Amino acid sequence: MATAEIITIGTELLLGQLVDTNTAAIASALADAGIDVYRETSVGDNADRIAQALREALERADAIVCAGGLGPTVDDLTREAVAAATNLPLDLDQGVLDDLRAWFASVGRRMSPNNARQAMFPRGSTILENPKGTAPGFSLDLGDKIIVVMPGPPREMQPMLRDHVIPLLTSKFELQSVIATRVLRTAGISESEVDARINDLFRAGVNPSVAVLAHLGEVDVKLTAKAKSREAAYALIDQLEPEIRKHLDDHIFSSNGASLAEALGSSLRGRRWSIAVAESCTGGLLGAMITSAAGSSDYFRGGVIAYADEAKIKLLGVTPSLIEQHGAVSEEVAAAMAVGAKESLHSTVALSITGIAGPGGGTKEKLVGLIYIGFATDAGVEVKRLQMVGDREAVRHRAAINALMIGWRAAK
Amino acid sequence: MATAEIITIGTELLLGQLVDTNTAAIASALADAGIDVYRETSVGDNADRIAQALREALERADAIVCAGGLGPTVDDLTREAVAAATNLPLDLDQGVLDDLRAWFASVGRRMSPNNARQAMFPRGSTILENPKGTAPGFSLDLGDKIIVVMPGPPREMQPMLRDHVIPLLTSKFELQSVIATRVLRTAGISESEVDARINDLFRAGVNPSVAVLAHLGEVDVKLTAKAKSREAAYALIDQLEPEIRKHLDDHIFSSNGASLAEALGSSLRGRRWSIAVAESCTGGLLGAMITSAAGSSDYFRGGVIAYADEAKIKLLGVTPSLIEQHGAVSEEVAAAMAVGAKESLHSTVALSITGIAGPGGGTKEKLVGLIYIGFATDAGVEVKRLQMVGDREAVRHRAAINALMIGWRAAK
Repeated sequence: MATAEIITIGTELLLGQLVDTNTAAIASALADAGIDVYRETSVGDNADRIAQALREALERADAIVCAGGLGPTVDDLTREAVAAATNLPLDLDQGVLDDLRAWFASVGRRMSPNNARQAMFPRGSTILENPKGTAPGFSLDLGDKIIVVMPGPPREMQPMLRDHVIPLLTSKFELQSVIATRVLRTAGISESEVDARINDLFRAGVNPSVAVLAHLGEVDVKLTAKAKSREAAYALIDQLEPEIRKHLDDHIFSSNGASLAEALGSSLRGRRWSIAVAESCTGGLLGAMITSAAGSSDYFRGGVIAYADEAKIKLLGVTPSLIEQHGAVSEEVAAAMAVGAKESLHSTVALSITGIAGPGGGTKEKLVGLIYIGFATDAGVEVKRLQMVGDREAVRHRAAINALMIGWRAAK
Repeated sequence: MATAEIITIGTELLLGQLVDTNTAAIASALADAGIDVYRETSVGDNADRIAQALREALERADAIVCAGGLGPTVDDLTREAVAAATNLPLDLDQGVLDDLRAWFASVGRRMSPNNARQAMFPRGSTILENPKGTAPGFSLDLGDKIIVVMPGPPREMQPMLRDHVIPLLTSKFELQSVIATRVLRTAGISESEVDARINDLFRAGVNPSVAVLAHLGEVDVKLTAKAKSREAAYALIDQLEPEIRKHLDDHIFSSNGASLAEALGSSLRGRRWSIAVAESCTGGLLGAMITSAAGSSDYFRGGVIAYADEAKIKLLGVTPSLIEQHGAVSEEVAAAMAVGAKESLHSTVALSITGIAGPGGGTKEKLVGLIYIGFATDAGVEVKRLQMVGDREAVRHRAAINALMIGWRAAK
């Protein structure tokens, strides 16, 4: 199994002026090719420190994949650093120099002497074409190890990675295995609960591997399989998926990349149901999520943002005495809101949310984070009570996600 | 001059499943505090490899700032790795354990045995509070060196970095120059237009420095001053701010960290105005943004998500012939929606949005991204027509931001 390290180079990375997206792009491409990455490093535009990072990486990994520091300015020192780390001289490549001169002539610009530095490469390098810029990349085969260097701008790096670097590494390390992944997206369950239910399935080094990734209100379970062919890799995933579903089936809303709003949408479409919403503390967030799916006008009728009590009474027909008796945040009002939305908007089903998003508004009996979600159908109305955690944003987000899950479960 | 290294931890980083934004956020905060960063490293969820990276970093730098691997799962190994790298045992912190238990009890959830791991810290650690999650951070002072560990989710990491880590490092290394920053937040103007209006103010190495950072629909102008005292640094910023305002005043909605929704809220509160919304293509997003501000029930009455035409007619009183004649995406319908929301919800003012968010629904006359925003007051109703660019999410987000700006300008 070949291993790689990624080194990104640029003082702007160390100053936090730029988020490094190259590392993730390279890591993802290497993972897909079946190359393990154990470490990623960023260093500044300093030849000694780049060379030191290269020497250390060569001790540990088979392939060192670098990006950055190939520009024409005096700050661009990756060529010099690779030469220093490998004790090789820099040679001028006449072909590249001629190409550079021709390119500058063709755009009517004067080539500065600095630009000639872009034609210098450590002895023995293979030059990697850069159709998007003036800085070619290069690879330096050291026998059992290899160093690859690409330019830093993502639009120059990405095609070079795909067209030259991945094929080069696949051939160098005779990689035969293909990687396939499938993400089972879940909601309505915490990361630690997912973990507790399936942690016997993720033992280190097992194929397929299982990883759990938490987002706000959602948890992804990612299955990754390695095999000789794409078909064989997916067959391994197909074998494992039922094992996961046994423990999580009621929470897995998609396995094809669809968002929860999209999964709800296709279930509603399948049943030819329409939906409406009535929102208090979420203020429109549930509607915004439902309509984040393209084509949601097929099933979404609309809704009422019933923030003030008057809106609940006037637009949703909630009886004032219900609010007086039980409070606006109550099972009774959630039920009346859902029924009111269904009736006003003539939908098949309707979801309502009322709760205390915080930071203010909590009492001893009704804590911040208390949420009631109503779901009205022709058969009647059901209300779910939840106690959410987190700040205002998290409570509102999780409330909306839980409401979507209730709709999805009913329609699926 | 103190030096630091940043280590981010998580196998998802090595697989390229996640772009590491924490490194840039930490690097930028360290740079502002006057701490030099020479290297950034990412390693996976493997205790030996984390410990190895820590040992190497301790050889080179004064402060090691880490993020990630503090969760409750068996994959979260940063605590163990720090203990191994420093040859210290892990101790249970009873206070943290009690807090964890109390927290799980308060939300009515079962605490899994795994969660107790979050109360283990290398001996001698100072615990860093995490108001946004269950994983506290910690710092470990080793005399001339210090290790700091924060949780990986950016929304948990960022407040801990700002409120605990930077003050800790500033005091530990007796950093004398004080950094003050002020962010002038703008909307309704593009990044390149902001740049063109004030670019004579950002020369390299000048104090205060000026940086422009674009978000979806908003552009921040960040002023950073260095001086011997907090007062002197803010005095420098106070001198520069009017220069910036000369060029951008009508777009700067806050200089105190307030979001656009919060700035709108305090303007509405100041005038004792209430507001309501009527939304078509944004589906509730404008209401969700307005209610993202705590205390918005003081001025937000509610709204109607009028996705289907029937909702526009029935709940907002839009005349059917208006929709037939001009289409649901038209100046006339936007005006009628705003007036309808103002009347139904008895608010002082009302905003409406109707448009084509895409990807479908565009025509030759009405392109995807066409948005009408209505604003109704006692004096009448005005409609603004905008042609947005970007995908469905960007169009909807920018439409809502532009509507907020119209409300804010009227109320400020």
